Amino acid sequence: MAAEHQHAYESVNVALGERSYAIHIGDLGLGQSNLLRDLLVPHIGGSQVAIITNDVVGPLYAHVIAEALPDFHVDLYQLPDGEASKTLETYGLLMDFLMQARHNRSTTLIALGGGVVGDLVGFVAATFQRGVSFIQVPTTLLAQVDSSVGGKTAVNHPNGKNMIGAFYQPAAVLADTGVLQSLPQREYAAGLAEVLKYGVIYDAAFFQWLEANADALRERDGTALGYAIRRSCEIKADVVSDDEREQGRRAILNYGHTFGHAIENLSGYGTWLHGEAVAIGMVMAAALSQQVAGLDQAQAHRQTALIQKLGLPVSLSGKSLEPSAFIAAMGMDKKVVDGRMRFILARSLGDVFVADDVPEAELLHLLETFL
Amino acid sequence: MAAEHQHAYESVNVALGERSYAIHIGDLGLGQSNLLRDLLVPHIGGSQVAIITNDVVGPLYAHVIAEALPDFHVDLYQLPDGEASKTLETYGLLMDFLMQARHNRSTTLIALGGGVVGDLVGFVAATFQRGVSFIQVPTTLLAQVDSSVGGKTAVNHPNGKNMIGAFYQPAAVLADTGVLQSLPQREYAAGLAEVLKYGVIYDAAFFQWLEANADALRERDGTALGYAIRRSCEIKADVVSDDEREQGRRAILNYGHTFGHAIENLSGYGTWLHGEAVAIGMVMAAALSQQVAGLDQAQAHRQTALIQKLGLPVSLSGKSLEPSAFIAAMGMDKKVVDGRMRFILARSLGDVFVADDVPEAELLHLLETFL
Repeated sequence: MAAEHQHAYESVNVALGERSYAIHIGDLGLGQSNLLRDLLVPHIGGSQVAIITNDVVGPLYAHVIAEALPDFHVDLYQLPDGEASKTLETYGLLMDFLMQARHNRSTTLIALGGGVVGDLVGFVAATFQRGVSFIQVPTTLLAQVDSSVGGKTAVNHPNGKNMIGAFYQPAAVLADTGVLQSLPQREYAAGLAEVLKYGVIYDAAFFQWLEANADALRERDGTALGYAIRRSCEIKADVVSDDEREQGRRAILNYGHTFGHAIENLSGYGTWLHGEAVAIGMVMAAALSQQVAGLDQAQAHRQTALIQKLGLPVSLSGKSLEPSAFIAAMGMDKKVVDGRMRFILARSLGDVFVADDVPEAELLHLLETFL
Repeated sequence: MAAEHQHAYESVNVALGERSYAIHIGDLGLGQSNLLRDLLVPHIGGSQVAIITNDVVGPLYAHVIAEALPDFHVDLYQLPDGEASKTLETYGLLMDFLMQARHNRSTTLIALGGGVVGDLVGFVAATFQRGVSFIQVPTTLLAQVDSSVGGKTAVNHPNGKNMIGAFYQPAAVLADTGVLQSLPQREYAAGLAEVLKYGVIYDAAFFQWLEANADALRERDGTALGYAIRRSCEIKADVVSDDEREQGRRAILNYGHTFGHAIENLSGYGTWLHGEAVAIGMVMAAALSQQVAGLDQAQAHRQTALIQKLGLPVSLSGKSLEPSAFIAAMGMDKKVVDGRMRFILARSLGDVFVADDVPEAELLHLLETFL
């Protein structure tokens, strides 16, 4: 007889009033179990379900979800894997699919995949018949600690990432740590960049814990991974609950991202993974913080050391980017408020703030060092 | 010297917590005045404004709005007039326009036109960079009393109207009664259909007032028109404030609309104006209410008489529609909840309710009479 599989999971509540939802983190049995049904069914209001996934994750897990929902009419749509699917065109194809399969306002969408699937399906859910329910089943570390928390949904525009979208919360998030074991190493490490970010922006003790557990995390130890995801979700949930629509405090989540987006933009999407670009961006943000925000050198070095220990890059290879092009690329970033350039800077590990008065000369000095 | 033009207006507050906004109704000077600036500027947060309009209304009024905003960078986009612009494709073109003109998150969109412009621009505002501010300047009676209140934004899908959209509130609505004087007669009358609906669903006294003032309204008397718009907006605001996201009570606003949408669908869009189809739909809803909800004949007749007096149709010409096709067309309507057909029925003038248990035989009997 087969041994009973043990499922251990914890839940983080994202407190947003009537839009609150739970993130369940742990070994949720995307492989084999009834736990899945128990976690999914309470959030399905009608008789229709559409699983939307990509052609890498779909073949592995979509049938498990479908089998966990025998009492529902379940349709499946598989997108090509990758950022190229995150367009208004694909969004239109998904609307066609839902209309042709006659899904109604009480349907539930299940987003099974990484950040691309989550962002795209979330935006479809936000706008199909002016909003239907959706459940996130993120299958990458990055999606589990970042895009599944906070309700940001979007597709890209040819002139900029995430330019078309909505704030829209899922009914629940299922973050299965089991699926992370099979992630490619580079993609896994890229997810750790965002985990590390939460320590820097919010919680010096968590940063220390990451330093102490860096080896366990690199080896994908289940216990360490579960805690890292939970604490990351808690921190993001705290920040998001305070500022659901990104008017102020929530901006600190963009630490390293203004630089990171410019790096992604100029290197051509695909050269760096998002998390890798953010890792380099955090090194740049710390350097700028040393220049203008009094961050001391030892703390900046600890950040760089941890980034390296987690298997992430700390500089651009080749020094080939033009400062003026880099500034323009940052200027296209949607975090610009009325022409003023904003940066998230660190006073110390665990304490960051929004600066909108960085002198251009300081920025140029930084870029000359890094590009 | 030119005589000073007198501006009289009233405001209706739509109470939705932090999403509350005011509807200003009256002679707001879309022709010539400084009042416009005073009403617009408090709702513009950044330095950028985009006026999005159609090629009928734009040439008449867009320059007046632009001239009222000398301190802002104002861009203009003119769409072809008509329902054919309310598509995902046009939505994509507007996103291209905003990106290419480098509008940022603090831009303000001004929707200048009828319901098509309002619904489309509202959806663009809801989703450009995950939501920017927008101001509605509705230029048809229908848009002033219906689509400018309640935050419904959308585009059509080839398989159904308003299938892609969001709930998103404007920062303010400017309902200028002056612009209504030049509306084509048929379009003006179609707007009165929705005004009349508010009496039937919510306010018997307002219905009586409409009966007493039908001639003044047909002649577009400014005072009568101002009151009719204000009371309509108040009623819709009351209903919407109770139920922003259309979970329950708000459904009463669809009185006559399930039939009306099927009439529009099957006759081919363009045969009947929306308000005309709704007028016929209300006659059908009243007949079904007589059959199954105890509406007495005299009250049903009063509704029919007022519809006729306001210059609207009360029956289909030609009796050419198939009951089975009609039911299918109603089934495609998004107001279907999990396969059950819902109707808004009247117990008496001013008192309607949601019925989801109408026997199919009663529906067939009704359709055989009307189609």
